[in-house]
Amino acid sequence: MPTGDDDNHGDPPPEEEEDDAGYGDVAVGGGLFSVPGYEWADVAALGRDVAGRAVRVRGAAHAVRAVGRRVAFLVLRQGSSTVQCVVGGGGGGGGGGDAGVARFAAGLSRESVVDVAGVVSLPREPARGTTQQEVEIQVKKLYCISKATPNLPISVDDAARSEEDVAKAKAAGEQLVHVGQDKRLDFRVIDLRTPANQAIFRVQCEIENVSLASTRPKLIGGSSEGGAAVFKLDYNGQPACLAQSPQLHKQMAICGGFERVFEVGPVFRAEDSNTHRHLCEFVGLDMEMAIKDHYFEVCDVVDRLFVAMFDHLNKNCAKELEAMNRQYPFKPLSLHYQHFKFVQTNRLFISYLPKTLHIEYDEGIRMLKEAGVHVEAMGDLNTEAKKKLGELVQAKYDTDFYMLCRYPSAVRPFYTMPCSDDPRYSNSFDVFVRGEEIISGAQRVHVPEVLSRQAEARGIDVGSIAAYVDAFRYGAPPHGGFGVGLERVVMLFCGLGNIRKASLFPRDPRRLNP
Amino acid sequence: MPTGDDDNHGDPPPEEEEDDAGYGDVAVGGGLFSVPGYEWADVAALGRDVAGRAVRVRGAAHAVRAVGRRVAFLVLRQGSSTVQCVVGGGGGGGGGGDAGVARFAAGLSRESVVDVAGVVSLPREPARGTTQQEVEIQVKKLYCISKATPNLPISVDDAARSEEDVAKAKAAGEQLVHVGQDKRLDFRVIDLRTPANQAIFRVQCEIENVSLASTRPKLIGGSSEGGAAVFKLDYNGQPACLAQSPQLHKQMAICGGFERVFEVGPVFRAEDSNTHRHLCEFVGLDMEMAIKDHYFEVCDVVDRLFVAMFDHLNKNCAKELEAMNRQYPFKPLSLHYQHFKFVQTNRLFISYLPKTLHIEYDEGIRMLKEAGVHVEAMGDLNTEAKKKLGELVQAKYDTDFYMLCRYPSAVRPFYTMPCSDDPRYSNSFDVFVRGEEIISGAQRVHVPEVLSRQAEARGIDVGSIAAYVDAFRYGAPPHGGFGVGLERVVMLFCGLGNIRKASLFPRDPRRLNP
Repeated sequence: MPTGDDDNHGDPPPEEEEDDAGYGDVAVGGGLFSVPGYEWADVAALGRDVAGRAVRVRGAAHAVRAVGRRVAFLVLRQGSSTVQCVVGGGGGGGGGGDAGVARFAAGLSRESVVDVAGVVSLPREPARGTTQQEVEIQVKKLYCISKATPNLPISVDDAARSEEDVAKAKAAGEQLVHVGQDKRLDFRVIDLRTPANQAIFRVQCEIENVSLASTRPKLIGGSSEGGAAVFKLDYNGQPACLAQSPQLHKQMAICGGFERVFEVGPVFRAEDSNTHRHLCEFVGLDMEMAIKDHYFEVCDVVDRLFVAMFDHLNKNCAKELEAMNRQYPFKPLSLHYQHFKFVQTNRLFISYLPKTLHIEYDEGIRMLKEAGVHVEAMGDLNTEAKKKLGELVQAKYDTDFYMLCRYPSAVRPFYTMPCSDDPRYSNSFDVFVRGEEIISGAQRVHVPEVLSRQAEARGIDVGSIAAYVDAFRYGAPPHGGFGVGLERVVMLFCGLGNIRKASLFPRDPRRLNP
Repeated sequence: MPTGDDDNHGDPPPEEEEDDAGYGDVAVGGGLFSVPGYEWADVAALGRDVAGRAVRVRGAAHAVRAVGRRVAFLVLRQGSSTVQCVVGGGGGGGGGGDAGVARFAAGLSRESVVDVAGVVSLPREPARGTTQQEVEIQVKKLYCISKATPNLPISVDDAARSEEDVAKAKAAGEQLVHVGQDKRLDFRVIDLRTPANQAIFRVQCEIENVSLASTRPKLIGGSSEGGAAVFKLDYNGQPACLAQSPQLHKQMAICGGFERVFEVGPVFRAEDSNTHRHLCEFVGLDMEMAIKDHYFEVCDVVDRLFVAMFDHLNKNCAKELEAMNRQYPFKPLSLHYQHFKFVQTNRLFISYLPKTLHIEYDEGIRMLKEAGVHVEAMGDLNTEAKKKLGELVQAKYDTDFYMLCRYPSAVRPFYTMPCSDDPRYSNSFDVFVRGEEIISGAQRVHVPEVLSRQAEARGIDVGSIAAYVDAFRYGAPPHGGFGVGLERVVMLFCGLGNIRKASLFPRDPRRLNP
């Protein structure tokens, strides 16, 4: 996949594959982009103790400086930590030779997202201007994952400058850029990357007492997912609407340099759905995270989060579950033990596995067809098919909580990342409890051109989503996430049968009171 | 205060005050209503180990049954726990004699909030139909704190019945009331008191991972605080608005039988305030709790919560605070140590006390006047006066975080509880950091008649707040709470100077993007 911008001079080092120059632009899409021999590391965790280790680090190109033809210094930023990376200088650089990789590094636009694979080393003198001063990285491979536009509307350094420094410089006859509040807020994705902002919103999370949680706005211009199901209002003379999901803003937070964001907040849907599982206002639990290698990293978070949550509920809410069961009888959802299998024939309870089962969408379709259920191969599953599939999965795998992965692209939103081996499928998943969908998640497209193309292919007016697409032009890491309705989790964990029972003061198409 | 509905027959027991019959209706308002010799206890915590102890319990009159003229059984409910209370039967009952107190108990309307003071005893046979079966309470005193309307729209027992029980009864030729979903939701305050609902929302809190937190709706009919600062919208043809505060719904949750509710969610204000401290959408941290004796119980929660939060931030976010300080220099807010007093002359930091200082509003006015600041004795403090008072308090008490209590009633909302010794003052408080208000709290009026009267006195159309007032007609415990803006906490703890710095994607009168 990676291609250098140079011809191959001389022989590549023995460990290199023939077609990999060891640097270049890489289209990290829906597939695995691995760099064998290098392990993922966090900039903040690099120290003298890991000197000599071969590491791979993904971060923003904070600054680049060429030193002659064969060496370039690249400052890589992750959150508010930075490390100096030495590119070229005899350190390797693959088939293109030092000059090739150094030139490639020097040409990186600031804020582009890059992968650096190299060896941690101790600099002769402490590095200056980086938070990591005792170590640097001797770069062996350098790939650009997401190119930032070369003309950034504001720079992180300018946005990070204190007013005092600007004033001091002015007094000394020097003119430093000062970024005003309004301009910062216009280009918030970049502004959020400053050390002060990274710090402010970590403190805010601590105050909210929810690790990594943060609340994005509910009042937005335009409509968050488009379409009719949006509540519109007047915002001091501007047309506005209520967010139908925190999708855009949680993705923007990721683009703003937060590795993971978690949000608990209201979600508004003006849908006229009078069902047992829809509300016009519900509490959304939403998560978004940078992905390193594969969208299964998101699935793993779902698995860990929900298995821990179910364990916790069963352990700490036994009395409450009993109280519900007395009025609204249901089969509890319990942790599955292999040796209980034969006791379970009467099924007084249903179960989840210690490690959540994944099955592919196509396998689900196969199981349904074999059971005589009529389903479209590349279409969406209706409520009955989902229910039936839940029964089939229970019978075959003995679990009532599972993930269905690799959905056809056609039935997912335009911003879903297609699979790299077959774009008719996507890096997406739904999670089911008791035969009902509870969670929806996916890797998102972080490449502006692909986003526009996929929107166009569905007949969406690209102009109307320009602000969304533009958020990915300033360097965007591969990322994904999921969303889940709090009331739906309560309803399905407890088998309540009607979502209104799980909402303190429910709002449906007919009910706005009390 | 308490008055029996009987004349005094015979001599009162020696420990009784002359004018206290030991039972009757009590107007628990803004003052302390103590019952000496009895300690507050929770129904769920009563057990054989506390037999013989003199306890006081506040709960709902779940059921009452007269047995002859001199004895009545009262089932008292707290959350989802119930205990049998024996009234009369030689157990005491003050000046009115057994017949008087038994008659008073028998006449209690269901769901009224009552205080029972008595001795825990072991029944000869296990009590039936209560969650506490091994103990009961021999009632010495019985006061009705909040009378529920005798014609409840639905009963808790009916709402708590399972459909199976209704069907079984029907099959046996018996007609039991089944409360439909719609009716439940219309009278949600009562419906929330069932064991199943108490359980459902405790489970929901566990899922949200925020102890006692829950999210009330943001879409409401009418306007939550009235006035112009409300965003209006169309809700499937009905006029609706965005909640300006969760005030009504958190109070309704308390009336629904939850002892404490805590909420983190967006709050919407359509105000045209272009200041450094106002946003059109912010994250509200809101708390409401049942009060036993005095509104200082609310102040104590504020004190414990914020001192713990500040300690936590100073301990765990040192790096983040440093990062902010580099770009936006500020004096950190640190825990005050007595022996640092003299070191502090240069004031490199400001401080909070281990136990938060309370001062009365009148003392604040006195301090300002002595300092030559012109202030109205019973008026509100403007921004400058608050700033100045902050300096004066710092100079005198050496703290930058303090509570100002007992505000004039005229400057607080109509639902604020007046002080019992002087209704020109109220059971309310504001909390200040760095001379700026950060938190506002108070005891609320839980008596419908007083609420209506206070609204009227301010020219509010009582008809327009009927739904709010009605929420207190089904038995309402004395309660209070507070609200605080998350962004304001971050701004003031970190001395950021502008609230936009503390909001990921701020919304002010002019800004709706990104």
